[in-house]
Amino acid sequence: MKKKKLRSKIIKIFKRHKLSEKHSKICADYLIKAEIMNVKSHGLTRLKMYCERIKKGLINSRPKIKIKKINSSISYIDADNSIGFVSSNIGIQQAIINAKKTGIGLVAVKKSGHFGLSSFYAEQAVKKNLIVFCFTNAPPALAPYGAKKSLFGTNPICFGVPTGKVPFILDTSTAMINRGKIRHAHKMGNKIPYGVALNKYGKITTSAKEALEGTQLPIAEFKGSGLAWMVDILSGVLTGSSHGGKVKDPFDDFSGPQNVGHLFITIDPKIFIGKRFMTEMKKNIKIVKKLPKAKGFYSILYPGERKNKIYKSNLKKDISIPSNILKEMEDLDVVE
Amino acid sequence: MKKKKLRSKIIKIFKRHKLSEKHSKICADYLIKAEIMNVKSHGLTRLKMYCERIKKGLINSRPKIKIKKINSSISYIDADNSIGFVSSNIGIQQAIINAKKTGIGLVAVKKSGHFGLSSFYAEQAVKKNLIVFCFTNAPPALAPYGAKKSLFGTNPICFGVPTGKVPFILDTSTAMINRGKIRHAHKMGNKIPYGVALNKYGKITTSAKEALEGTQLPIAEFKGSGLAWMVDILSGVLTGSSHGGKVKDPFDDFSGPQNVGHLFITIDPKIFIGKRFMTEMKKNIKIVKKLPKAKGFYSILYPGERKNKIYKSNLKKDISIPSNILKEMEDLDVVE
Repeated sequence: MKKKKLRSKIIKIFKRHKLSEKHSKICADYLIKAEIMNVKSHGLTRLKMYCERIKKGLINSRPKIKIKKINSSISYIDADNSIGFVSSNIGIQQAIINAKKTGIGLVAVKKSGHFGLSSFYAEQAVKKNLIVFCFTNAPPALAPYGAKKSLFGTNPICFGVPTGKVPFILDTSTAMINRGKIRHAHKMGNKIPYGVALNKYGKITTSAKEALEGTQLPIAEFKGSGLAWMVDILSGVLTGSSHGGKVKDPFDDFSGPQNVGHLFITIDPKIFIGKRFMTEMKKNIKIVKKLPKAKGFYSILYPGERKNKIYKSNLKKDISIPSNILKEMEDLDVVE
Repeated sequence: MKKKKLRSKIIKIFKRHKLSEKHSKICADYLIKAEIMNVKSHGLTRLKMYCERIKKGLINSRPKIKIKKINSSISYIDADNSIGFVSSNIGIQQAIINAKKTGIGLVAVKKSGHFGLSSFYAEQAVKKNLIVFCFTNAPPALAPYGAKKSLFGTNPICFGVPTGKVPFILDTSTAMINRGKIRHAHKMGNKIPYGVALNKYGKITTSAKEALEGTQLPIAEFKGSGLAWMVDILSGVLTGSSHGGKVKDPFDDFSGPQNVGHLFITIDPKIFIGKRFMTEMKKNIKIVKKLPKAKGFYSILYPGERKNKIYKSNLKKDISIPSNILKEMEDLDVVE
């Protein structure tokens, strides 16, 4: 489908579900961005879920989002159960303003929801020449090291830096595989890789269905488990949002709003060494890229480069939408 | 050896090497702390190296450390090639002051050296009821994903949070194994685990010597490589220190000072939800600990708990020192 047509369709669907014109546009753009980046798990496959949660009043279609200024560096946002895209958009914009003013910004968002890809927000800060961390927690998917039951989300660590060219954006889940990818595999009837998830009996499985019933494995055992825990503390405990496995699964749990928390930290990289930062950053990347390559590698990419290439190459293409999702979209556009 | 006696000996050795009484005490206490924590790789095994670098003028025994105030949150420290312990001690103390004043502290340290364990500094901030990140880079040990040559250090990610009890301190190298542990194994004539390092031809090795000549493997391939790169940018590029593989190996490279960089970020956890932070943090830990245990586990520990147990159980014991290191210490105390 042509992107312009798709955008109109999504906006129409969100507006039918009582989102404002402005919020509908923000959400449509992020969903399409995920599709262009080929992260299907964070794209149209979630549209029905968002709409269902709006219909059930679990996502507030007309939120009164409050921004509390703690000081020039620190802000605290009450998202009023808005759709995650909208409050996070406000959150990162505030974090950018704060860092531009003082050199460092810290913005917490509470009562939010799934916000798509962390890199959406990191990219905005990087394009304003800032270093950025984005943290968010998520529904239980990962067993803490030593436990056999899911508790942490796949809790990504997202870090961005301006490079003068394509943004350096590391957006890495603390799980061996993203939960969204398992969901997508399940929806499409595909298998998942070996060694990334356990079934409910604690055995390794390649069935997406069994993995969703079971638990995912963290990267590097205790280390990955600790990093996921760190993200839960930063985005859940610190922000006054749900934590410790209490973030609700947006697909399965309609007992209340998700209450996801986000934390954005922004740093002006010129604060210590001025314009030399960009010179050194370019030098840093150049050195790494020049290293002798391992077998099977023809170039060394920094985080964000591969996704950027995919984005650019898909930008002029139409978006292919599986028939089951097309059907979902038709239904969402008709049924009130 | 009794800790009191050992402390006097180390102080005497550092003073012989022209460190001030105050700086000698700081260094002695950190080295002994590493020994008590049973992280032998960061303890007495490094004493000779520090002294050699001092003798060669690569560590400045009488540094003029400058603290530049950028604003109430941000400070920039020129360590003047001091021994890492001393400048990092000043760095974390400044970061604590800044966060207490404004809610967030950001302190960069340049021209520093190996500072021991990141947890030394994280612990100080946590004991002052702050959340903390400590980043430091290190000499090449890790091949970036796609390269066959070492470039990043084992670049730890260190994160601390107050819990009301034992500090939550995640101090995780981005390598499968710490370089210090390989060095220690080499010194002691021990093997290293399978699958954590490659020899210089790119083959997996369990020989510590071959691993030191070769390269270490990052956790989770591209993810761990990206995290190590992030730490190099934060502690190296941002602070105006060496980066991109230019941090000198303190054991092997006497061509100049190490020029390690550190970055400390401190956050007052009460800034958003006040005293409720501690209640929620305790709740968070309680929930995780109550999860059903995986096979072979009788309890779930949070990061920092295990090391704290070791520390406590060793605190009243004498420190056992291998004969080769005792000999080194004797030589350092005699030879000028």
